[in-house]
This record gives sequence, C-alpha cells and structure tokens, in this order.
Amino acid sequence: MAIDLRSDTVTRPSAAMREAAAGADVGDDVYGEDPTVNELEAAAADRVGTEDALYVPTGTMGNQIAARVHADRGEEVILDRESHIYCWELGGLAQLSGLQPRPVDAERAVPTPEQIESAYVETSLHRAGTGLLALENTHNGRGGVAVPPESVSAPADAARDRDVSVHLDGARLFNACVALDVDPERMVRDVDSVLFCLSKGLGAPVGSILAGDAAFVENARRVRKLYGGGMRQAGVIAAPGVLALENVDRLETDHENAAVLARGLDDIDGLRAADPDTNIVQVFTDDLADAETFVEACEERGVLGGAHGPFLTRFCTHLDVTRADVEAAVDRVADVAADLRE
Amino acid sequence: MAIDLRSDTVTRPSAAMREAAAGADVGDDVYGEDPTVNELEAAAADRVGTEDALYVPTGTMGNQIAARVHADRGEEVILDRESHIYCWELGGLAQLSGLQPRPVDAERAVPTPEQIESAYVETSLHRAGTGLLALENTHNGRGGVAVPPESVSAPADAARDRDVSVHLDGARLFNACVALDVDPERMVRDVDSVLFCLSKGLGAPVGSILAGDAAFVENARRVRKLYGGGMRQAGVIAAPGVLALENVDRLETDHENAAVLARGLDDIDGLRAADPDTNIVQVFTDDLADAETFVEACEERGVLGGAHGPFLTRFCTHLDVTRADVEAAVDRVADVAADLRE
Amino acid sequence: MAIDLRSDTVTRPSAAMREAAAGADVGDDVYGEDPTVNELEAAAADRVGTEDALYVPTGTMGNQIAARVHADRGEEVILDRESHIYCWELGGLAQLSGLQPRPVDAERAVPTPEQIESAYVETSLHRAGTGLLALENTHNGRGGVAVPPESVSAPADAARDRDVSVHLDGARLFNACVALDVDPERMVRDVDSVLFCLSKGLGAPVGSILAGDAAFVENARRVRKLYGGGMRQAGVIAAPGVLALENVDRLETDHENAAVLARGLDDIDGLRAADPDTNIVQVFTDDLADAETFVEACEERGVLGGAHGPFLTRFCTHLDVTRADVEAAVDRVADVAADLRE
Amino acid sequence: MAIDLRSDTVTRPSAAMREAAAGADVGDDVYGEDPTVNELEAAAADRVGTEDALYVPTGTMGNQIAARVHADRGEEVILDRESHIYCWELGGLAQLSGLQPRPVDAERAVPTPEQIESAYVETSLHRAGTGLLALENTHNGRGGVAVPPESVSAPADAARDRDVSVHLDGARLFNACVALDVDPERMVRDVDSVLFCLSKGLGAPVGSILAGDAAFVENARRVRKLYGGGMRQAGVIAAPGVLALENVDRLETDHENAAVLARGLDDIDGLRAADPDTNIVQVFTDDLADAETFVEACEERGVLGGAHGPFLTRFCTHLDVTRADVEAAVDRVADVAADLRE
Repeated sequence: MAIDLRSDTVTRPSAAMREAAAGADVGDDVYGEDPTVNELEAAAADRVGTEDALYVPTGTMGNQIAARVHADRGEEVILDRESHIYCWELGGLAQLSGLQPRPVDAERAVPTPEQIESAYVETSLHRAGTGLLALENTHNGRGGVAVPPESVSAPADAARDRDVSVHLDGARLFNACVALDVDPERMVRDVDSVLFCLSKGLGAPVGSILAGDAAFVENARRVRKLYGGGMRQAGVIAAPGVLALENVDRLETDHENAAVLARGLDDIDGLRAADPDTNIVQVFTDDLADAETFVEACEERGVLGGAHGPFLTRFCTHLDVTRADVEAAVDRVADVAADLRE
Repeated sequence: MAIDLRSDTVTRPSAAMREAAAGADVGDDVYGEDPTVNELEAAAADRVGTEDALYVPTGTMGNQIAARVHADRGEEVILDRESHIYCWELGGLAQLSGLQPRPVDAERAVPTPEQIESAYVETSLHRAGTGLLALENTHNGRGGVAVPPESVSAPADAARDRDVSVHLDGARLFNACVALDVDPERMVRDVDSVLFCLSKGLGAPVGSILAGDAAFVENARRVRKLYGGGMRQAGVIAAPGVLALENVDRLETDHENAAVLARGLDDIDGLRAADPDTNIVQVFTDDLADAETFVEACEERGVLGGAHGPFLTRFCTHLDVTRADVEAAVDRVADVAADLRE
Repeated sequence: MAIDLRSDTVTRPSAAMREAAAGADVGDDVYGEDPTVNELEAAAADRVGTEDALYVPTGTMGNQIAARVHADRGEEVILDRESHIYCWELGGLAQLSGLQPRPVDAERAVPTPEQIESAYVETSLHRAGTGLLALENTHNGRGGVAVPPESVSAPADAARDRDVSVHLDGARLFNACVALDVDPERMVRDVDSVLFCLSKGLGAPVGSILAGDAAFVENARRVRKLYGGGMRQAGVIAAPGVLALENVDRLETDHENAAVLARGLDDIDGLRAADPDTNIVQVFTDDLADAETFVEACEERGVLGGAHGPFLTRFCTHLDVTRADVEAAVDRVADVAADLRE
Repeated sequence: MAIDLRSDTVTRPSAAMREAAAGADVGDDVYGEDPTVNELEAAAADRVGTEDALYVPTGTMGNQIAARVHADRGEEVILDRESHIYCWELGGLAQLSGLQPRPVDAERAVPTPEQIESAYVETSLHRAGTGLLALENTHNGRGGVAVPPESVSAPADAARDRDVSVHLDGARLFNACVALDVDPERMVRDVDSVLFCLSKGLGAPVGSILAGDAAFVENARRVRKLYGGGMRQAGVIAAPGVLALENVDRLETDHENAAVLARGLDDIDGLRAADPDTNIVQVFTDDLADAETFVEACEERGVLGGAHGPFLTRFCTHLDVTRADVEAAVDRVADVAADLRE
C-alpha cells in the first residue's frame, strides 16, 4: 500500500474524534446556538490568548476573511512571495477583496522589518496605501520553516508602527510552537489575527479557527456568512476539533519522522534534502530528474509526494505515517533514484 | 421547554446520522478522494437527474457559486424580489460576482414568462445584458409556496429562449416535490443548475448539494475553492447527508403539521394564516400587534418564531416538532393573542 | 438634412465656447493647478450651494463615484427601476462598487417616503443594509419628469432619518429648475451629493460636475483617479463648462419646443404623446407600429429619435433644434404615420 | 519664475492645438459620430500599426481597460515591481478587475524571458493562472529607460508562447522610439495592446490612445463606458491630439535637455545622476539629504522636482522647458547643494 506523504491534509480522524462527532451536542450555529462550536471557539481563543475565535470550514476561508476585515479595497498586502495566501488561494485577495499584494522575498519565511519599511506605501492620491501584513508560520512554501516568536514580533511591530494590521496564517501554527517549544500565546502576541487549522497534523476531519479580538471576530462572522461559511449543526465537526486541540504534543513525532526521512533521502545519490524544522521535507532532484518525473516514479514505487517546483518535491509527515512507514519510504525512494540514474 | 418553530435549519441529526458520521469512510476531498463525499455527490446527482453534483457547506455558498459560474460581471439576474438569493445573502450577487439583480414581483413565487420577457435586457454599449434567471422552490419568503413543475419550466424556457441560464434555489426542493407529488428529476428538468439542502427538513447537520452538468460542476468546484469551501475529510458530514436523501418522504409529516398549525392559528382572534403548501406558515398580526411584539410575546410563552415583515411572523415545522408540539403551540399562541388583545 | 432629436447629448459647443476652449488658462489638474478647472468647480459649487465640486468627464463617472463614496460593499441602493444609474450604466453599481440595487416602481419619478420605508433594510447577519438612496431629476426614463423640490426633500428626509445617504442624478437638473422655476440650491438642499451635466442642454462639449461637502469631494477625487478620470490640462474643456453654467435660462426654449412637438405628434393619428415637463417627449405607437419600425421609418424621413421600449419612442429637444425644426419634424412624422397606417 | 521639472504631464497646449480645439468638427462620440475623434483614432492606429484604436481620457484608464479586457478575475499579471500600472494606479488591477499582480524585479525595465518562465503559473484547482504580461516603455519608475524593440519582443514572445496576452504601457512610447530611432510599429509589433499618451511630451492637453486589434478595441469601448470614459463632443480635445501625433520628432530636444541636465547635476558635489535614455533624470542625494528635504530646498530656489524614493528625486524635461531653463536649473540646484552641504 502506498505511503501517502503528499500532505498532512490527508490525515484521518481518530476513533475518539469519530465518537465525539457522533455524540456532539449541537444546535444552529448561525444563531450562535451550537454548544460544541461555542465550546471549541472558546477553547481555541483561550489556547492562543485572544478575546474571541471563529470556526471556519477551511483555512483558505479564514485567511480570506481576515484580509477583508483588516484592509480596504485597493490597499496593499505585504507578504512573502511564496506564501500560501498569495500563491494557493486563487488570487482571493484581489478577487474577493480588491487587495493588491506587494510580495517581498522573505528568505527566512517572514519579511524583515527592513523589507516592510521598504515595501510600505503611504496613502496618496495615486496609491491606496498599505493595509495589511500577512505572515505565515510554519511557512509551507519554504519547507515548513518554524519562525521563532521574535521573528514574528519584529515585522509585526514594524507594521503596527505604521498602522498596518497583521494577520498570521498559522495553518500549521502548532508545528511551529512544538518545534520551537514556544507557547502559542507568545507566538501570536503581536499579531491582530491568527488562522490555524484543526485538520492537518492535529487530525480533525474539517475546520480551522480564525482568532482575534472581539470586534475583529464580529466582523469576521459576517464575512463568513457572505462567503457561505455559516454552517448549521456544525458541532458534528467541531467536536473532533475540540479533541484536535489536545493533539498538539503529538506533532513532535511528525517532526522526528520528517527528520529521519530527510536524512535518509539526503543520503541517496542524486537527492538533496535539508534538515526540516517541522513536518515538511523539501527534496531537490536537480541531478536526477525533474520533479514531475520523480514524483511519478515514486508513486509507482508506492510513495506519494508532490511536485512543488521544477526540481522540488515535497514530502509531509503526519499522524497516519509511522516511523516504519518513513523508513520504508526511504528504501523505496532509494530504488526510484537507482532506476532514474540508469 | 420552548417549541422551536423559527426555522427548519434547527433540526438535529438522527442517531443513524450520527452513527454514519462516526463510521464514515473518508479521504481528502480536495484531491477528490473522499469516498463518502463521492458517494453522496453521485447519489445526489442521480436523485435530481443531473450529470454531476458538488457538496458545499451551505446553501448560500451553493447559490453564490451558481450565479458566478452562469453569469459574467455586470450582467443582470432576473429574480423574485422576495427571493433568498436577493434578500438574505448579504448582497453576494453584487459583492462576489458583480451581478446586478433585476427583481420582479412574482406573486406566484416564480416570475412568469411575461415578466421575464419584460425584464430581459439585451447586451448593448450601455447594458451588460441579462445573464441569469434565479428561481426558488419552495419559495421561503412567500410562505413556502410549492411551485409546480410546469411553472418552473415556463419561465425557464422563456429564459433559455434568450440564452439566459437558469438556476433553481431548491433549498427546500424536496418539500415541493412531496407537496406536489412530483419526481425531483421532473422538477429540475428545465433548469441549468439546482441547489438543495441536506440540512433543513432532511435533517443532515451540515451541507447542501449544487447539481448540474459536468462542465458546470467542474467550474463550480473551482469557485468553491475560491470561496473557502474546499473541505478535507468531509465524509464525516457527507455521511449524514447520504441518509438525508432517504428522508424525503418524512417531509409529508412536516406539511401536515404545518397545516394543523395554520388552521389553529387562523382560528385565533386577531391572527390570519393561509393554508400552507409545505412546512412554512405565515401569520399576519395586523389586527393584534406588530411582528416584533408578537414574536417576543410568543417567546415568553415558549413558542419560537421569526418576524419576517412589519406584521408578518413565520413559523416552520420540521423533524424535531411533533403533532403534539404543534397543538401545544397553537394553545400557547392563543394565550399570547388573548394577552395582546387586552 | 436630418433633424436630430435622439438626445440632447448631441449638442455642439457654441462659438463662444470654442473660443473659451482656445483661450483657457490651463495647468495640471491632477496637481490641482488648472485655474480654469478650479474656477469651474468653484462656480459650480456656488451654483448648487455645496461646499465643493469636482469636474468629471461624464455623468456616468460622476454617478458611479458618488455611489461608491456613499455606500459600502454589499449595501443596497434604493432607486427607481427606470433610473439611469440602474438601467444604463452597465451594472456599475454592482460591478464597480459591489452594491445591490433595490428598485422600486416610482411612478412619479422619485420613490415616495412610504416606498423608502418599505424598501429599507437594516443591517443584520444576513443583510448588508441600505446604504444609499439614488434619485434622478429630471427623470430621463420616465419622460423628462421635473420633480418639484418638496418631492425630492420628502424621500431624502426619509432616507436620512435612517442614516442613508442620498445622491441626486441631476444630469438634467437645470431643466427641472427652469421648468419649475426653482433655484438649484433649493433643489439639492436635502441631498448629500448631486451630479449635473455641462453637456446636454447646457451645450458644453464634455463634462459633468459632482458636488457635495468637502469630505465627500475629497473622497470623490480619489475614486475619480481610480476610474481614470484624472485628466491633465482639463481647462480646455472646463472653459466651455463655465459658459455652460450661463446657459441655464435657454433651456426654457427647449421645453417650449418640446411642448410644440408633443402636441403636434399627439394630434397625429396612431400616436400618443403626453405634454412634457421638460425637453423629453415620449411617443407611444401601440396603434401604429413597434418602436423599432417607427424609428426607422422616421429616420428615412429625416427625423432621428430613439426606441426606448417596445412601443415607446423618445424625442429630445436641445439647443441645436429650432422651432422651425420641430414643426418640420411634426410634418415629417405625420407622413411617416400615414405610410405606416397604409 | 519656477522651472517646472516635476513631470511632462504639466505641458501646455500650443497655439495651434488651441486653434484646433476651437475649430474641431465634433459629434457625439458615444454614438461613434465625432469625426475628429474618429480621425484621431484612425491616425493613431495607423501610427502604431494596429487594426483599431480608442481615445481615452487618461493613461490610467487605458491601462486598466486593457488589463480587464485581456485577463479574467483572479488571474495573475506579471509586471515589473516598479511599473506604473502596479505602483501608481490605486491598485486598480485588483480593485477594478480582480487581478493579482505577480511582480518581478526587472532591472532592465522589462522582465526577461527567464523571469517570465519563472513567474508563470498554470491554471489549476488552487491557482487562477497567469493572464497578462504588462510591460512599460519608456519605463518611468526606472528613470525613463528606453527599451529596445528586441527586449520588448523577447518577453512578449515568452508570454504568448504560454497563451498569455501582452499589454504595453507606452505612456511615453514615442520617447522610446525617438531615443532608439525605432519605428513605433516595430516597437509594438509583438504586443496585443498598447497605451500611449497624447499629453505629456507630445503636448496635448488631455487624452491617451489604447490600440490593438478590432476585437480588443470593441471590448475596450464597452469597458470605457463602464468606467465613465464615454465622452460626448470629445473632438474638442481630440483635435489637439491629432496635432500631438505630429510632435514626435520634437521629443529629441527633451532628451538632449535631459542629458544636459543630468551631466550638470552629476557634476554637483553630493549628487549622482546617470545619463538618461530619454527625458527623465533620476538624481540620487544619498550623500546630501533625503529626497523630501532636497525637493523642498530646490523648490525654494525655483526648481520643481519630485521625490520618488527615500533618496531619489526625479526631474523631467518637456516642451515647456528650454535649454536655457535647464542650464538655469543646474545653477540653482548647485546653490541648493551648497546650502545643504553647509
């Protein structure tokens, strides 16, 4: 059977989560009457230390709601050129909110204060001005980099000094917290809103949390309705989400497996893989084959990954992948490489 | 305990649905790999006789996706002035898709061919032209009216003769089918897309179906991603949705209860309620009190409804309301009316 | 030679206007340095009694800027279903500003306070709320109706009581003022912004004025830039505009000619034309031919008009049409009617 | 009196242009009946060798129309990070058309084929794909760089190989043609549309041309109406535009003056100015003062320029600036520098 390392989005809910779904106390969440959703939102806000939180069906919806609430039409969004909100959300910033991205090349995953100073634009007759700084932690497109809290605070401070709001796409926030042994509250202390996913490594089947102060969440709730995210008896999926919040410590295992995987792959002739910060391993195959060819060859050998650049393949570890799986994956990829070298 | 007649959106999933959620076979639906979602989409398409179908988290998302796929920026949407897509979706047609509503006063819930002929606008240098006809069946804002299939086909034909696409908001489509004893396939035969809810009277906790031909659904799938509706292991909520499709016949009970409720309320001095087609009862309180006052007074007596106009209150029957509940509600409202008459 | 009664937009600038264009003192208006534009904006604001005014290339741009400045995305705009901003501006309210029109059937050209009360929508989780009332005076689509000031004030007050801004599309504002012998200041006293055209009956080749308080005009100036209306040495066209402001009294002649035209046409067998308020004559040809046929037949006889409905033709008088032209037009149309009756 | 080197947008029309405005044969251009506009559009299309052309009030409107016609909502626009369409048009790409900019750092003013290959994005479920390449020649933000035709063709070919349309913002196209002694037809041969200004160095008071094939211009005409650019007797400003087309050769003088200015300024202690390609001189004041301070000091001495970066000031030569003016400007700036060095 294939070892699925394409993404941690493929994780399946645990038996306990399924049981929680089945037994969830529910109500109509559009009326604010779903006790399980309310419990989840309270627990989530508590976990990251914000006034309030909102349950949303996907991370994309959460990010796009945040951008719209923080910034007005035409305003610019400073972001890393490899960030998810810019590259993988169908141009939603522009399409849904009329916002103009101002990408910078953030080599360490988040823009530096100097980059923000340089990218910042004042409002004038010809320019709408900068309205938002969008950060990402861990940073998916740059290999699951875990950004330490002071590297979140520095750009956030630079933005807020200029009255620019800051949103943190923390789809994998807890991976960063675990990798760096930092409390989530500390990690989001200097941003105005944070999105984090209950699915992915935490294992919930569906759903993310968008957290911020009370006024932000109130506005976000209306935009969620506009985008079609106002679900009814959502407690059924919120209940596994409550359990997902307890799954944080287990991310350590994914990181260890990723480290094993990276070292194993890097030892293979023709492959190059740096030590990962978290659960995402980037493998460069420049000396062997292009990424599409490599991914297909891996698939034939029962290892699933994803081409993320001409010669860049991404493998993700997650709760449905064991140490044995990872070791088997290394063996299989070694065979792939041998074939391709011929 | 209060008898909750505010909306059929408050229905709670059955034990079987909860069990189905717990046991659902799941995968990553963004990759198209959730077998339960796939099963649901196939079953739903089969039920309404379309080539394909898409699972969406809410009816609002489904309607808004359909409008965007069918019509281009600036185009006009002919719709009833009381329709949900126009009145209750935060101006999404304009906000999300740049579409301009052209409301008509559809006394029988859907516009007549004559109204469509008159509202239709040709493309010119000054006008973007008509791009969509949006129908609703049953029609919520007009009291749950069940529109017979020939009254759907007539305006649909008028639209399509002018190369205008037709979307049917069938959030309560099966209520119409049951009330009129019409097969769903017949009901949607002449429209280009249909939205129907698995929640509401069918009892699923979350989710709706947007159905149409294969090209439409392919486009809809991309817009769903843009709007943040691309959920992952959605099988957990799709599984109850599969069971919801088997719940159609039970809507008959809701309709009977609504009829009992309407007759009971109409007999009360100061209240006026017509015989309902389906599960929605409209009560006019012109001679007694304004709707806000009436609804509050009912709430104090343990009957929950909603003010939908200055003197119009809406009560909905649904699967969590029994015949005894309805009879008790009539008694309580009689007391309310007596109080208000004093 | 054809008598051109299609629209008063066809008017050509006078010799004095051409001379003014040639001799205009100009500068870069984007920098606020065009003295002639500044003079025109000051004179225009003075004429309608507002704090400030902005020169815009077209009435459409002025109306669309106003809507965007007054109302936020998703909000509703109450307007007459035959109004220019709704029917003839390519759905700009929705396309450019994400605003949702809420048309009413304003038989007397502007909505009544009762219609506003009924169309008004409060902000809620499901509704963006009403953001703007858009009036039109004179009302083109209803036959150049001149709305008396108290009929402007009444709906304007009804809107402002609900914190809804009011914009007046006065493309032909001065026609209304002349017809009713009302000072422009009185006419716009109760609205938040007004658009009026310097072209049309006033004879300037290009340009309109958008007027309101200082904060409104400052915002409007930025939106004008966004829409591409920030012209440079615009004094060349603003200079004729200054003269156009002195052309107001001559509109009386257009109205007299329109009255002569209407009576003449109404006397023709098969035609029906009501007495016009201003310079727009609506002719109904139900008993003779459809409007397209009628307009074509008129064109062949050297009279140009426009089909504005299945059996409705519009003729406009303006400064390039004399009494003799109008009388000749009646004679020619009589021949047309005779032909068509055969 | 101040020597105004802020921009070539400040140029005033010649006596001949004013006379042409006064004598222009005009009609209603919305009906396509303004003979002077028609003449201008034909002459302009002929000059750049396209099928058709459209007169627009501003370069911003022309650029924004082009982007909208070429690309669909959500699609990406590859452009230089210093380009006008990205930096100085109020985020119109996102606001007006829902397009997401994908900036590259084009050191030689236009992106290289390699940059395009790397920035290009294919359409997928998560990405809207690349819809447009926007070039600029001369390139304002990079100092009036004149891009040779083969450097326009190379990226244009790279784009079109990928089915990506190409728009050229040639606000100062003729400056490039004169500087490089290249025929305009050659310069735009490989792009799908071109915008060029009749104002700026060519001296017309108002207006720009958007040119392309017939289908493009037809679509552009409708978008022009939407944006409020459908003027009426526009012949009054089109007539000077016809003369502007004959002003091309005189740009040589501006370039010579700019060269004199640059050498003069570069000789001043504390200032650095490279030899300009065309009429735009960039002066770096890092060793002397920040740009704001420098510009203010210059203004006090009677030389007007603009701060375009923390230490970057831009001076423009144009038809209202003589060789003597330029020499005087150098003398005055020398005094400024002396003051600031103290």
